[in-house]
Amino acid sequence: MSFNIEDHPHKRYNPLNGDWILVSPHRAKRPWQGQVEKPVLEERPKYDPGCYLCAGNERAGGKVNPDYKGTFVFTNDFSALLTDTPEGGIDDGELFQAQSESGICKVICFSEDHSLTIPEMEVTDIRKVVDLWCEQYTELGENPDINYVQIFENKGAIMGCSNPHPHGQIWSSKGIPTEPAKESKTQKAYFEKHGKTMLFDYVNAELEKKERLLDQNDSFVALIPFWAVWPFEAMIISKRPVQNILELTEAERTDLADIYKKLTVMYDNLFETSFAYSAGLHQAPTDGEDHPEWHLHMHFYPPLLRSASVKKFMVGYEMLGTPQRDITAEGAAKRLRDLPKTHFKKN
Amino acid sequence: MSFNIEDHPHKRYNPLNGDWILVSPHRAKRPWQGQVEKPVLEERPKYDPGCYLCAGNERAGGKVNPDYKGTFVFTNDFSALLTDTPEGGIDDGELFQAQSESGICKVICFSEDHSLTIPEMEVTDIRKVVDLWCEQYTELGENPDINYVQIFENKGAIMGCSNPHPHGQIWSSKGIPTEPAKESKTQKAYFEKHGKTMLFDYVNAELEKKERLLDQNDSFVALIPFWAVWPFEAMIISKRPVQNILELTEAERTDLADIYKKLTVMYDNLFETSFAYSAGLHQAPTDGEDHPEWHLHMHFYPPLLRSASVKKFMVGYEMLGTPQRDITAEGAAKRLRDLPKTHFKKN
Ligand SMILES: O=P(O)(O)O[C@H]1O[C@H](CO)[C@@H](O)[C@H](O)[C@H]1O
Ligand SMILES: O=P(O)(O)O[C@H]1O[C@H](CO)[C@@H](O)[C@H](O)[C@H]1O
Repeated sequence: MSFNIEDHPHKRYNPLNGDWILVSPHRAKRPWQGQVEKPVLEERPKYDPGCYLCAGNERAGGKVNPDYKGTFVFTNDFSALLTDTPEGGIDDGELFQAQSESGICKVICFSEDHSLTIPEMEVTDIRKVVDLWCEQYTELGENPDINYVQIFENKGAIMGCSNPHPHGQIWSSKGIPTEPAKESKTQKAYFEKHGKTMLFDYVNAELEKKERLLDQNDSFVALIPFWAVWPFEAMIISKRPVQNILELTEAERTDLADIYKKLTVMYDNLFETSFAYSAGLHQAPTDGEDHPEWHLHMHFYPPLLRSASVKKFMVGYEMLGTPQRDITAEGAAKRLRDLPKTHFKKN
Repeated sequence: MSFNIEDHPHKRYNPLNGDWILVSPHRAKRPWQGQVEKPVLEERPKYDPGCYLCAGNERAGGKVNPDYKGTFVFTNDFSALLTDTPEGGIDDGELFQAQSESGICKVICFSEDHSLTIPEMEVTDIRKVVDLWCEQYTELGENPDINYVQIFENKGAIMGCSNPHPHGQIWSSKGIPTEPAKESKTQKAYFEKHGKTMLFDYVNAELEKKERLLDQNDSFVALIPFWAVWPFEAMIISKRPVQNILELTEAERTDLADIYKKLTVMYDNLFETSFAYSAGLHQAPTDGEDHPEWHLHMHFYPPLLRSASVKKFMVGYEMLGTPQRDITAEGAAKRLRDLPKTHFKKN
């Protein structure tokens, strides 16, 4: 018997963050008697008088939202990072090290329509979200006290999203957060060695191998990375090496909106539910340096595993040992790729 | 205004795994409108005919449990790691690296009594669990194909536990898992520099500072580490530097059972619920080498934040940026420390 990646337990290496993950392809066969989530099926109204993100409504802090159409951005009323944090820290030997951190946190409403989600929005409207990301990346990035702009979306109550109104967030900070810092290091080492970005080589290799591809357009590829941890984890990677979203052409911005929709439609169609995930852009720090090693991409971390109501738990062994998945990246990609391309609600 | 660790957002360094975490002390003030978990309050019978871990019952694979009293161990019917995995892997350039992984996974029932949990068990009965850990660490550790023995417990449905019968697991492997590998590196560097284990210095510093202590006995300290990520994350650390549980004396084994109960009673008392967590031992690899740098400890990662039904979501920013917490380690420690020492159900 020889080793076979489809059937045998193995570890895979993530060259982007330097970690290994464990794959146990046979594990999905075990019966599930654990927690069952509430599947999301209810239809929401276009306007909810109790929603603090709907146009014209009052927010927690007492502020009133304008009567916006399309996108709307405001500073998070409960920001995790603040601009007026004094510098300083604790330096009490090697074991007690702390440093002040400051930043700006924002909330981005994707649409005035409370009932929508990205996969149900039109590409032209998602494009407005991409434009707002660009504006915010510019504005925050020009601030000398902001060295990293983390744009992300938590979708679904099981992903900690506390309001179903379509929205995302931006947490921007003086320091470079842990994950982008790891990716800076690995991408820099790769670029210095090969004179090309890691993800340029990666995306081209995947375009040839095909088995992990989900979809593509002229400018972007959606795929399940070889080293995915979450069952249906995916990445959107630009075909052309660009450091950040500001380098995208007009057509590429629209293509980003297009692939964002394509991927999330697949997700919704998989279990015919509004598929929860955390997603976010990784791109060059705004620290005033040139970052030819950085290659724009977007990560999607969705928790569901077996159905609309059974998720993967990253617990015990995953927290104390090694992150572990129960199906292969290739199997997950095939399932998503073979789904109809139209949103299930439109059938 | 000068920097103040109790009020201002800051980063803290975890010297044990080399990562930074973000603390936003003011964030717990935000209102919560998101997902609410089902609190665990129901009483369970001492024996459940439908439970595959109860004595005398049939398991998924068709095997029948013996009529055990106390602890009972068996090989996981759905092991993530298997002994007969052929060696091999994939070596297709830097970006596609995989390696076969093998190991042995076991399930440990803590008691025949289906209704119990660790905080509700007697110390003499928890001691039997500690003895079984020692037996298993010896047996698995002597296997030349096992280089790490990860003992852990997932407690509660929200922590992915699929059966409420009191039990834990052991996943042992040929490779050293990611987290212990990181801790090996940091502990080794510290030991080489100081000639003492990192956690020996750490535990003594905390015994002096007192603000993060939860409880202690002659042999162990329970505390919230300075760098805790989860709201009520805790560690149990041996006062004496021991590499693994086999080095514990008889009295120390009982003390480990005692502190395990003390900490979990605090947890249950915090929100008067059966408090979910993933917990596990970290100790020296069983790779045949001497590991004077390794200092036995146990991590507890509990998800609850605000109440029996509102947990902390490690999502969006946490996955894409930096793990973030909403209350300080010191505040969390004070809340736990000030609770009554008797289990709330006994009042
Ligand atoms: O083996 P169990 O208890 O069914 O499974 C649970 O623990 C495992 C080890 O932490 C995890 O991989 C699973 O996601 C979780 O549901
Ligand atoms: O700001 P929100 O949406 O209320 O909060 C959500 O996203 C944050 C950023 O990922 C997390 O820290 C919170 O745990 C989560 O509930």
